[in-house]
Amino acid sequence: MSIKPISIVLASLFLFLTVLPLLWAANETNEVLFTTEIQADATPAVVAKIRSYPEKAFRKIKFQKGTYHFYPDKAFEAFAFISNHDNVLTRTPFPLHNISNLTIDGQGSTFIFHGVMIPFLITDSKNIRVENLSIDWATTFHSEGLIVAVDEKNKSFDLKISAEYPYEIRNEQLYFIKEYYEHTIGQSILYDPKRRAITFDTESYTPLTTNSRNAVTHGVEQIKYPYAKDFKNQKTLATGTENRLRVIQFEPGLVRIFNHIKKLPPVGNILVCKGEQSANRIAPAFRILHCDTFDAKNVTVFHAGGMGLIAENSNDLTLDAFNVKPSGTRMVSTTADATHFVGCRGHVILKNCTFNNQLDDASNIHGTYEEIVDILDPYTLGIRIGHFQQQNFKIGKAGDRIGIIRLSNSFDAYETNTIQSVTPINGRYHLVKFSKKLSENLQVGDLLENLDAYPSLTVQNCTISNNRARGLLISTPKKSLIENNFFSTEMEAILIPVESGSWFESGSGANITITNNTFQDCQHSGFDRGVIRFVTEDDTEHVAFKNIVIDNNKFQHFDNLILEVSNTDNLEFKSNVITNSGTFTQKYPNNEVIRVVHSKNIMIKDNQYKGKAKEFVKSDGSIPNQTNK
Amino acid sequence: MSIKPISIVLASLFLFLTVLPLLWAANETNEVLFTTEIQADATPAVVAKIRSYPEKAFRKIKFQKGTYHFYPDKAFEAFAFISNHDNVLTRTPFPLHNISNLTIDGQGSTFIFHGVMIPFLITDSKNIRVENLSIDWATTFHSEGLIVAVDEKNKSFDLKISAEYPYEIRNEQLYFIKEYYEHTIGQSILYDPKRRAITFDTESYTPLTTNSRNAVTHGVEQIKYPYAKDFKNQKTLATGTENRLRVIQFEPGLVRIFNHIKKLPPVGNILVCKGEQSANRIAPAFRILHCDTFDAKNVTVFHAGGMGLIAENSNDLTLDAFNVKPSGTRMVSTTADATHFVGCRGHVILKNCTFNNQLDDASNIHGTYEEIVDILDPYTLGIRIGHFQQQNFKIGKAGDRIGIIRLSNSFDAYETNTIQSVTPINGRYHLVKFSKKLSENLQVGDLLENLDAYPSLTVQNCTISNNRARGLLISTPKKSLIENNFFSTEMEAILIPVESGSWFESGSGANITITNNTFQDCQHSGFDRGVIRFVTEDDTEHVAFKNIVIDNNKFQHFDNLILEVSNTDNLEFKSNVITNSGTFTQKYPNNEVIRVVHSKNIMIKDNQYKGKAKEFVKSDGSIPNQTNK
Repeated sequence: MSIKPISIVLASLFLFLTVLPLLWAANETNEVLFTTEIQADATPAVVAKIRSYPEKAFRKIKFQKGTYHFYPDKAFEAFAFISNHDNVLTRTPFPLHNISNLTIDGQGSTFIFHGVMIPFLITDSKNIRVENLSIDWATTFHSEGLIVAVDEKNKSFDLKISAEYPYEIRNEQLYFIKEYYEHTIGQSILYDPKRRAITFDTESYTPLTTNSRNAVTHGVEQIKYPYAKDFKNQKTLATGTENRLRVIQFEPGLVRIFNHIKKLPPVGNILVCKGEQSANRIAPAFRILHCDTFDAKNVTVFHAGGMGLIAENSNDLTLDAFNVKPSGTRMVSTTADATHFVGCRGHVILKNCTFNNQLDDASNIHGTYEEIVDILDPYTLGIRIGHFQQQNFKIGKAGDRIGIIRLSNSFDAYETNTIQSVTPINGRYHLVKFSKKLSENLQVGDLLENLDAYPSLTVQNCTISNNRARGLLISTPKKSLIENNFFSTEMEAILIPVESGSWFESGSGANITITNNTFQDCQHSGFDRGVIRFVTEDDTEHVAFKNIVIDNNKFQHFDNLILEVSNTDNLEFKSNVITNSGTFTQKYPNNEVIRVVHSKNIMIKDNQYKGKAKEFVKSDGSIPNQTNK
Repeated sequence: MSIKPISIVLASLFLFLTVLPLLWAANETNEVLFTTEIQADATPAVVAKIRSYPEKAFRKIKFQKGTYHFYPDKAFEAFAFISNHDNVLTRTPFPLHNISNLTIDGQGSTFIFHGVMIPFLITDSKNIRVENLSIDWATTFHSEGLIVAVDEKNKSFDLKISAEYPYEIRNEQLYFIKEYYEHTIGQSILYDPKRRAITFDTESYTPLTTNSRNAVTHGVEQIKYPYAKDFKNQKTLATGTENRLRVIQFEPGLVRIFNHIKKLPPVGNILVCKGEQSANRIAPAFRILHCDTFDAKNVTVFHAGGMGLIAENSNDLTLDAFNVKPSGTRMVSTTADATHFVGCRGHVILKNCTFNNQLDDASNIHGTYEEIVDILDPYTLGIRIGHFQQQNFKIGKAGDRIGIIRLSNSFDAYETNTIQSVTPINGRYHLVKFSKKLSENLQVGDLLENLDAYPSLTVQNCTISNNRARGLLISTPKKSLIENNFFSTEMEAILIPVESGSWFESGSGANITITNNTFQDCQHSGFDRGVIRFVTEDDTEHVAFKNIVIDNNKFQHFDNLILEVSNTDNLEFKSNVITNSGTFTQKYPNNEVIRVVHSKNIMIKDNQYKGKAKEFVKSDGSIPNQTNK
């Protein structure tokens, strides 16, 4: 056994022998108080307390204000399939399972995690509230390095890596070493430290292309797979590829990277890396599954190795002053989305939140498409889960209405039925039994969508900025209100998509009101896309989106294109004020302001335009084109 | 979705729509018959059948004689902690859980598996019998290549790799590509194709040293771990290391390997590789956990990516004509032990078995030591599971007698108690509550051993040969009878160890009779060790082993050392016949035949010695030395 720091040993002994019995004594109001005496490793005391439920039911767990460390060594362990994350054998101090009516109040405390953990793993629970605490990690799941030199001749650049990000170079490959974890360069992007935001036009410089298809292969093609194989999974993609980049250290903390393909990143920028897809989303701060009513209030997530909060198949979630932002001098907060809601219902509310500097969207609200692969009997289908990060996601529960969809014909279901049962066989393959006999129209390859598992959505008084990717992705047909927010995002501020072939994220946005927001220099990564964008993956004329109001917003944009509309019926864009911010050089000065295709009943009126575009509306004939004077 | 071979599509449709209802109709004797109509992928039909239990209880599942393929795509999935294997999210067609009185009769069928699967995952079941079938994999979890040239000057050797083992070279590293799996060189050894056995003196040539400690590191030492960290886990060992070997292809199927450290392997030998420790034991053929009464009869395991059979915490296991041997022209059968029993009780019987060409021991029978890390209250201990491949192994069940041991003082328990409950917190950390108050003598660092969880053992009429490592490892104090077997193993034929610091495999062999066996040229890998060996890890004089009889055996050995005895009380070695086989050149011609230390009551008599050693018995004084005339 290795030597333990004496503080931990003493804390443990003290904890177990003397303090725990006192700490656990719930008072008349069923409250439990943890004091800072457990701060060296709060995990075992908290696990013991949580696991004593329901024998000693309690309504509130409070922490004396302070800093608490949570190590994985004595944490509760579970194997978790988590949507939009990697499957992970994880550890948590808060295994909230089958618990009702519990508030966890940090009273202003900071929780520092160590290694691959999920701070709050909340499953099959009801009326859970977490408040007044912040979450951070001692060592991060991403790494940052300052670009200090570039060499155009040799196509190399130099990275200064601070002591905060220990690393190794093995066979000319860079590995960032963390507590109980490590990652390669993998997915990367540039940050501009002056703005503490994604570098303007980062797409010209990043991501670094870490792999080439130059591996020597022999006989690999003879391996046949009788069933569909997922070529989006990085672990599958490895076949035929090898590392493209070459890294050498030329003094401690200073490394040179060769073989970059895109433009060399400008000196003074910060390269952010988080390792390979399929391996780097393993430690979200909150995982919520099959829960009814969850509230977070005054919670700050400074970091997570994944999302700030991922909720699946849950009902009524309210995040009030739930903030995601980086701590200290870090550029990055969470390494994936700030929040994400899959198959949720009831009402999802995000209010008074800050979502800053995360490496993916501020929020994404959607369901799943699952593919029919077997028609087993007139009531039962074998379905395949399309995305490797949706493994074991249950499409619904008994009584849910399921739509059966053939996207080549329509975005709407051609048949509906009701679930009798869902039986997981494995993460990719479930059996779905229906209450009514299925029609003979069904075909292998058609998709299932849960028509009941969409929430209404309110996003109010939030600041969404300095992050990679989008602000909001909205794929719910229920009512959505996006009001009084500030957006400054690298890609779309608001994206309303239909897509089926890549992420299998279901749902067509409808009944959306976007009002009184400010959009400041969004879409600055370099893509030729609008700030607000309605888009389908399939090039058809079918209606996907309807009943949209975008009014009284301010668009302060460095470029022209504000709004892209496709496959939409009934959209009003009115009373908005559009100015050119001058913040960055225009990338696409010939663009129009509004682009409309495959749509009808599009009303554009009463907007003030003070930008630089020559054309205001350009359309395929869905509505008349408009020019600016 | 990729295109499926039409045979699978048709087979699936046919299966689900028409055949399954017929197949499932149990006849009056509660028998189920699967026919070869499901052979293209038998998995979904078998999973559906197994999962229909107990609603439709059946006593027997029979297969029409034929070859059945099992793919993972529609197999039942479970996350499994498996002793002496890696933790794995696995798939199986036979998820036998909570099932009683079931026989699976292959009627001579061959089951071919594809990818990372466990053919038989048998947990919490009773009276299960598997008979008359063989198990193989379409692509193996190991790879083989013929040494065709060596270059002493450049210290390289050339490997010819047949089409059976597809590979890639990525950044000068060799990867063997399998169905749904790949492995590096990793752990390796030489086979002599003429003998189809491990090459004589392979230790001079292998294993290949794949890693060096030459990685550049920066700031890594600043990462502190307050608790014990397992440095035997390969994933942990990676820190500071990089790939040492360099591989190039100079024509398809022919690769050159540079930077080997040991002697260059002789041309004509076959290099066998199975990838890195901590990643290569993921698909045993049989996993048996918490079962009562398991029988296998006429079962052949041609291959597995791990052990042929691993049984944990189970009672009464009989393997009759359970054979492990390689198929086709392969050198290797299973990539780990043929069989292995941890914490089992009742009677373990191996009879009429062949255990050939597996890459680890024929059998290993032991318990676990688990380390006290927290004394939580007078009844409750927090214990740490020492080895990463014993994660989540439960030390026992309510009512079991536990010994508490301080190995520095004695191999025997200084205190015993009885389990009230075992609560797993995570794979490494469990809480054990006892019925009686624990004494104040207890110290953190002492070990727990389950005194009830050892079986009696019979190994009769078995052939154990051509494998890597040992024949039998025996760590049970109950009665063991090793009779009428043939051994020809690379290391010890029979090893009786006590060790605590590396594998944490508990148990001191006692009451062992080894009689009427033939030992043919064992220990030929090059180690200076006996054919039968009693050994403790700790250099003390405490008694570890007692009541041993070794009689009427034939030792046909190329070298001198036959028997090593230490820490033993009451051993008889009598009426054995020892000859020098002349098969290989002696490695240690100055060795004695029998070596005895720290022992008493050792009787050596009536043996016939026709070997080459000058000394027959050499001792530290435990018994008188004897010379050969």
